[in-house]
Amino acid sequence: MQEEGVDLTVLGPTNHLRWLAGLDPHGDERPVMLFISQAYAGMLMPVLNAASVRQHTDLPFHTWRDDEGPASALGDLIAATGVDPANLNVALDEGMRADFALRVLDALPGARRTFTHGTVSALRSEKEETEYRALKACALINDRAVMAGFDALREGMTEKDVAEVIAAHYASEGAETEFISVCFGANGAFCHHHTGETRLRRDMAVLIDAGCRYMGYPSDMTRSGWFGAPDPDYLKVVSVVEGAVAAALAASKPGVPARDIDRAARGVITEAGYGPNFLHRTGHGLGIELHEEPYISGASERPLGPGNVYSIEPGVYLADRFGVRLEEIVFLRPEGAEVLSELPRTPVIRG
Amino acid sequence: MQEEGVDLTVLGPTNHLRWLAGLDPHGDERPVMLFISQAYAGMLMPVLNAASVRQHTDLPFHTWRDDEGPASALGDLIAATGVDPANLNVALDEGMRADFALRVLDALPGARRTFTHGTVSALRSEKEETEYRALKACALINDRAVMAGFDALREGMTEKDVAEVIAAHYASEGAETEFISVCFGANGAFCHHHTGETRLRRDMAVLIDAGCRYMGYPSDMTRSGWFGAPDPDYLKVVSVVEGAVAAALAASKPGVPARDIDRAARGVITEAGYGPNFLHRTGHGLGIELHEEPYISGASERPLGPGNVYSIEPGVYLADRFGVRLEEIVFLRPEGAEVLSELPRTPVIRG
Repeated sequence: MQEEGVDLTVLGPTNHLRWLAGLDPHGDERPVMLFISQAYAGMLMPVLNAASVRQHTDLPFHTWRDDEGPASALGDLIAATGVDPANLNVALDEGMRADFALRVLDALPGARRTFTHGTVSALRSEKEETEYRALKACALINDRAVMAGFDALREGMTEKDVAEVIAAHYASEGAETEFISVCFGANGAFCHHHTGETRLRRDMAVLIDAGCRYMGYPSDMTRSGWFGAPDPDYLKVVSVVEGAVAAALAASKPGVPARDIDRAARGVITEAGYGPNFLHRTGHGLGIELHEEPYISGASERPLGPGNVYSIEPGVYLADRFGVRLEEIVFLRPEGAEVLSELPRTPVIRG
Repeated sequence: MQEEGVDLTVLGPTNHLRWLAGLDPHGDERPVMLFISQAYAGMLMPVLNAASVRQHTDLPFHTWRDDEGPASALGDLIAATGVDPANLNVALDEGMRADFALRVLDALPGARRTFTHGTVSALRSEKEETEYRALKACALINDRAVMAGFDALREGMTEKDVAEVIAAHYASEGAETEFISVCFGANGAFCHHHTGETRLRRDMAVLIDAGCRYMGYPSDMTRSGWFGAPDPDYLKVVSVVEGAVAAALAASKPGVPARDIDRAARGVITEAGYGPNFLHRTGHGLGIELHEEPYISGASERPLGPGNVYSIEPGVYLADRFGVRLEEIVFLRPEGAEVLSELPRTPVIRG
């Protein structure tokens, strides 16, 4: 916080709080927040949850009752932090509820605000080896589950049927489903398709983007394939997307700005004439949350560092035809990107 | 909005948007919001999700790409709404991410802000008969599931074992688990206990607070009981809490301020000497969300109206001994409160 010139950090009941303090207080509409200054750390706490959260922390609580509301406890807590409410830099948890954040800002009339990019999010993005082990184990479960999904493909099945196979595989290895997107045919051209009732026919593209959670950490991977004899255009697009992944992997080195990874992938796709069909950034960080810092976007000048974990997931989306996306999660080592998955990225042909 | 003097309503990818527009856009860190003025309604939309959301709505989209960010599209959208960014009243979705709300406020330097209490939340709190039917069906499934949990109690079981019985019952009736809190013994004194590994012994209190989701609507009910021969103090506390529920039910009439319902329940408990042990408000509204307007708190002067649906759930929490809470969901009719559950509130004795 000192390096970043932040006088006060305020976290809601989000993954920031779980990661930093190991706390998961009941998060409803009642304001519950951790305040951290250079001098003090304490929590605004609804009295009805104080006893159960007390089992997990010694942090001081500033409690409030439903019939009085949080204003007075919030004032006490701000006073305890020692900050000057009329002149300070506050870093707010970007993912907490809007009404929590605005309540804090109303109580700090002189606040210059930022979010946690420079503090908590930056710390979260530097993974340790224990986190590597959880992410790696989770990625390998995901490899097996996604392949179980491809192996189960039969004509007439729905996307939901395939998702059930993948979910059952997760459960069989003691993992929880994080999300499963199964896209048949033209549904693959929707980057965030909701798995539905579309049925598999011969000569359809199949895209599976899925992840589970294991030992507290998620996985996230996409493989693309075809049911039947693949359309030559499809194979051409797959090779372009594979080239984009390879370029982004090669560009991944500590010290390189995130935008250069995006440019490496995007350059290959643009060169092949599909630039307008690559609708999103190249990737996102992944840790206890599925999307977190560092974001691999053309707008990010943030230099990558060892221990960063992020996706490389270029895609080409052809409306009414198919989509191709290939996604890897990488752990950045001093010498470059280590891919967590052990599956090839070649198109998965079944049927 | 006109009645409430609101010039612009801004909703995030929350239940407000699901309820009002039937839309459930992919909600991640990318700003996606619906803007509604008197003259215009349109969405700020990440381009990668535009095609899939377009399947569900004709609303105009103001799209933005990951590498450019949302600022320019947001400016266009605000211009399209016709509001004066230097002078307006904006109602913000209180539950959306802090960074979404602050981005909007930064683009509206003259905004006086409020949340949706007077607009979307107020409309959501007036339930229709179709909503009644879903809530009633869901409450009856919950009745059977909670009793299945009590009936399964055996010495040595963990709280999690009982939760699994309840979850299996939900699934057997085609409902999804919303939440299940099973509290053995002194755990019942934590208002929001996390169901855990505590094992059932003879002469323990048992509190089960659970709800499922069915036809899009949730249920939420608490029953309290005892495994073995109940402690006389326990039965005394149960009768106090039952008196509080009865008083709140009797006080529930259209036009009565919410605080009067809270006072009716709290009065009975305070009179019996347990006032300091009733740690929370008497209840909360329930609709597509488990907690929504109207909140039944000593601080709320909001008059109740026909079609309001809310919980009445007074409790007495005795640290290191037990907790008693009895919770009903009521649908407010012109003549008074209709309780959705058909279970008695008498203590459930097993063992």
